[in-house]
Parts: sequence; C-alpha cells; structure tokens
Amino acid sequence: MKLLDIYAKMKSDLDVIEGQLARSVTSDHELLSETSTHLLKAGGKRIRPVFVLLAGKFGDYRLNVLERIAVPLELIHMASLVHDDVIDNAETRRGQLTVKAKWDNRIAMYTGDYIYGKALTIVTDLNNPVIHQILSKAMVQMCIGEMEQIRDFFNTEQSVRNYLLRIRRKTALLIAVSCQLGAIASGAGHRSANLLYKFGYNVGMAFQIRDDLLDLLGTEKQIGKPPGSDIKQGNMTLPVLLALQESSIKEPLLYEIKKIQESNGAGDTTKALNFIRKSAGIQVAEEMATRYINKAIQALSGLPNIPAKKNLTDIAHFVAKRNY
Amino acid sequence: MKLLDIYAKMKSDLDVIEGQLARSVTSDHELLSETSTHLLKAGGKRIRPVFVLLAGKFGDYRLNVLERIAVPLELIHMASLVHDDVIDNAETRRGQLTVKAKWDNRIAMYTGDYIYGKALTIVTDLNNPVIHQILSKAMVQMCIGEMEQIRDFFNTEQSVRNYLLRIRRKTALLIAVSCQLGAIASGAGHRSANLLYKFGYNVGMAFQIRDDLLDLLGTEKQIGKPPGSDIKQGNMTLPVLLALQESSIKEPLLYEIKKIQESNGAGDTTKALNFIRKSAGIQVAEEMATRYINKAIQALSGLPNIPAKKNLTDIAHFVAKRNY
Repeated sequence: MKLLDIYAKMKSDLDVIEGQLARSVTSDHELLSETSTHLLKAGGKRIRPVFVLLAGKFGDYRLNVLERIAVPLELIHMASLVHDDVIDNAETRRGQLTVKAKWDNRIAMYTGDYIYGKALTIVTDLNNPVIHQILSKAMVQMCIGEMEQIRDFFNTEQSVRNYLLRIRRKTALLIAVSCQLGAIASGAGHRSANLLYKFGYNVGMAFQIRDDLLDLLGTEKQIGKPPGSDIKQGNMTLPVLLALQESSIKEPLLYEIKKIQESNGAGDTTKALNFIRKSAGIQVAEEMATRYINKAIQALSGLPNIPAKKNLTDIAHFVAKRNY
Repeated sequence: MKLLDIYAKMKSDLDVIEGQLARSVTSDHELLSETSTHLLKAGGKRIRPVFVLLAGKFGDYRLNVLERIAVPLELIHMASLVHDDVIDNAETRRGQLTVKAKWDNRIAMYTGDYIYGKALTIVTDLNNPVIHQILSKAMVQMCIGEMEQIRDFFNTEQSVRNYLLRIRRKTALLIAVSCQLGAIASGAGHRSANLLYKFGYNVGMAFQIRDDLLDLLGTEKQIGKPPGSDIKQGNMTLPVLLALQESSIKEPLLYEIKKIQESNGAGDTTKALNFIRKSAGIQVAEEMATRYINKAIQALSGLPNIPAKKNLTDIAHFVAKRNY
C-alpha cells in the first residue's frame, strides 16, 4: 500500500489527533496560542502519531487512550523544532517562516518550553507512570543529542560512530518510543512493545540518514529550505564524514568547509556540495539507511500478521526512499 | 527561630537534597554536566526544597520520597533561570557569570531543556500520576508567565492586576506547588495540602514583590546584579506601576523609561530609580507584600501545631523583610 493510502485509511483517527493537537495549544495565552498554531499549521508528516496508532493495533486499540500518547509525542517533536530553529538561526522550515523569524528568539524559546509543558500535561492524564518515565527519559536524551550536535559543529574529525550515536538520541529514540508507547498504552504486552521499539529505532535511524541525504541532494522545493543548510550550520552529517574519508576529496572539501565556517553563515556551499555529491559517501549512506530499514522490518517479523504490520512495513520502505 | 537556625536544623536532610541535585545533573554528557553544575554551584536559597521538606512534616515524613519532589522543583526553578538569562541577556546572576555569558545562548537553551527533562525523570519515579500532573501544569503556567513578561516589556499602561497575575504564574505557583506536593507525597491529606498550597502561594507572591523591590532598592553586593536590572530590561514591576500613578512623577518617569527603552540596554537607570524611590510606590508595594505574608500565616492556622508550622511562619516573616 502507498503511504497516502495508509494515511487515507487512518484518516478519521488522524483527524481526531489533528483536532486535539490544535486544541492542546489554543488556550490560556493569546501569543502562545498564535505561535504554537503557526508551528502546527506548518504541517509535517505526523509520523510519530501514525506510529503510535499503528502500534496500538497490536493491543486493545482505544483512540481516547492513544491520543494521549500521540499528541504529546508530536508536541515534543514540535517543541524541539522551535528550539532547533533558534539554534540554527533558521528563517524557514517546510517553506514557512519559523517562529524565531516571524516573532523572535525569546518568543521561540518560551513557545518551545510551553509546548513541552503542554505535552506533559496531556500524557500525565494517563494514570500510567511507566509511560511518563519513558517519555521524560526520551526528552533528556533528545536534549543531549542536540547538545552533542552543537559541540560537534564543524568538527570534521568526528567518527561515523559519533554521528550515529547523535542521531540515535536526536531522532531515533523518539520514534522508537512512539512505537513502544503505542504498544504499552494498548496493553500489547512486553514482547510486542520491545519489538515495536526496535522497529521504531531502526526506522528512525534510516529516517534521519535520509533527511541528511536530502539536505545534500534535494531541491529547495522538495525540502522546504535551501539545500546545504546542514553544512552551513556546521552539522557534519554521514555523507560528509564518509566523503572526508576519500583521499582525493578530503583536502579540497576540508578547505571548503573551513571557508564556510569562517564566513559565519554567509559562505557559498556549492563547491562543498559538489565534492560530497560526487563522493562515494552518498551511496554508502544510502546503503546504511537501507540496512536500518531491513533491521526494522526484521523486528516486525516477530509480531502477529495484522494489517498494521503490513502498514508499518510499507512506511519503512517509504522512509528509505522518500525525497520530501 | 532565625532563618539560619531553621536551615541548620534541617541541614542533614538538605545535604541529601544537595547531593541528589549534584548527582542529578552530572551524567551522560560532559558539557551539560559542566553547565548544569556551574548553575547549581551559583547557589540560591533552595527555598523550594525547604518548603517541600517542611510540608512533608505534616504527613508521614520520608526523605527518600520527598527528595523526588524537592530535587525536581529546584531543577525546574533552575531551568527557568537559565532560560530567563537568555531572554534577559543577563551577564551575571548571584554574582556569578550566567551560562549564556560563560558559554553561549544555544548552550544555555539546551541546558535548560536538559534540566527540565531531568526534573521530570526524577519525579516520574514516584508512582503517583497526580504529582506528575500538578508539576507539568505548573510548568505550563510558568512558561505563560514568562511570555506575559516579554509581552509586557516596557508596557507602562499595564494594570497592577496584570502584574499580580504575571508573578502568580511566574513565581508564586511553583512555591505553592512545592508546599502542596510535599504534603501530598507524605500523605498529609487533602485539607492540609490545600492549606499548604495557599500558604506557598501567598509567600510566593510576597517573595516576588520583595524581589522586585530589592532590584530597585538593593546594592549590587546584596542582590548579585546591578540594581535597576528589571527596568533596564523593560520589566515593569509593582513599585514602578504604582509610581506611575502619581501625577507629579508620572511624566518625568515615563520620559526616563522611554529613554531606557530607546537606548537598547545601554541607558542609565539612575534618574528613573530616583523617581521610583521617592514615590509612594515603594511603601505601598511593601504593604502589599506584608498583606500576602499575613494571608500565608493565616492559612497555617488551620494546621496542627507541629514545629514545622513555626518554621514556616518564621520563613514567611523572613521573606517579607529579606534584603538579599
């Protein structure tokens, strides 16, 4: 089944989530409602809610419970995006002005804090402390991942292992937890929850590698921001680290990266992108993403053959190949 | 009993909290441990943990449970301070360099996020969802309070009521919740928890009014930052709003505030401070603080006469008069 068909089949439940998302941030305070709603309307694939709902199919599927997992997870993801935009000095995301660009950094920071807080008030409505624990631990790991990214900006000597550990925290964990908590909240049992966690973790790794590839290969129209944004910001992604291992590319690429770093965000990334694009780094990174997808699908093999399993498999295949 | 004597009597338990605070942030990640520890070492009165422990005396006092309330509350307070320093562009706090000054804004932002997350992982260890709910709601309200502060920067037409609502969210709620959760965690019963909440709320209001007075009246040595910081930043506190109600002061003070606003942080606050200091705003604000303290002490009258009640009373009196 194609991704759009999966979304279409889940439409009525996803509409409920979308409504709850909108409601969760429109209250209390006008400016916060406005900034949060602006953020929400920028859209996104809502992949975390989709995973929560599909994982919930392996147990006793109750939307009124699962929404209290799906909404907070999407909110936490959104909160991390607003804070990222402050850090990255990003003007647009998904083709829309960022909160920090439309308002300012201070407002973006508190909008993030507010959305984090809202996420927690929703999940704590579920009387299951284990869920609260898993979620708060994931939040801590995400912050560590973000800090690692800052620490490693323009660090051209970091290892591939270092990159993988970072995206594990920054991205894969929250997707893993989406699958795991969907299963736990629907009482799917310990074993299913673990397998779904494993699925989500591997899909998340592939998702981020693909995201990093798109930043190097995509067009502004496809990715909603200028390509090369990562390298401009100093974020040394997998294909870059791999390209730096090629003796014929290493020195000229290091020179370009240094120029970008010294230009303080004003530099031209064209030459650096060309070096990376012609390196073997692109293909090796693609192969690594595929390997993660295969592992994800393997994790599913231990689960019962319900339609949701087929949907998760299809989504995994999509993640590996997506170009938006 | 004097404040120092109360602290001395609680020393061994507060030392446990201090140790847990240090441990809670030293882990996982070197830079985050370093920034968080820097923040912790800047000290503070640890008034929230003190309230948690004293409130716990009205029930079944168990330090191993209460520490899981006291530590998160102090961490949440600290996280909000790091984020405030980003917003306020503050160079020093309590006489020490702020995280944003010693490192940078990005690191300060993620340090705050990390500490919020850590706070939640600790409190969620307690299998009591009600506690998680109260805490996450308090966090949301705090963010709203902070945003209100930004929205009202240099708004000289805001009402006193507006100011009171803002400090309620920004400060009083977290202190109220400290007392309330100490009571709940020790099983002190609904009525005691409510009275202690009321105590904390009123002490918190007085605490913030006093804080705002100190920023206008204190010396740099007393308050650990240059006096007039609030007005420089645009934070229109109670004495300022009251001074603006005096016909002989209004116009010249408005003129000074406008100059400060237009100077973008470089302006001199001396004249504005002089106008405010000679207004009746100082005394009226002091009277309001005293009224809140009296209400706080009144709330205690419904509680059993244990030593902790006397301690809370003494702390309330101290808050009303403190000059550091």
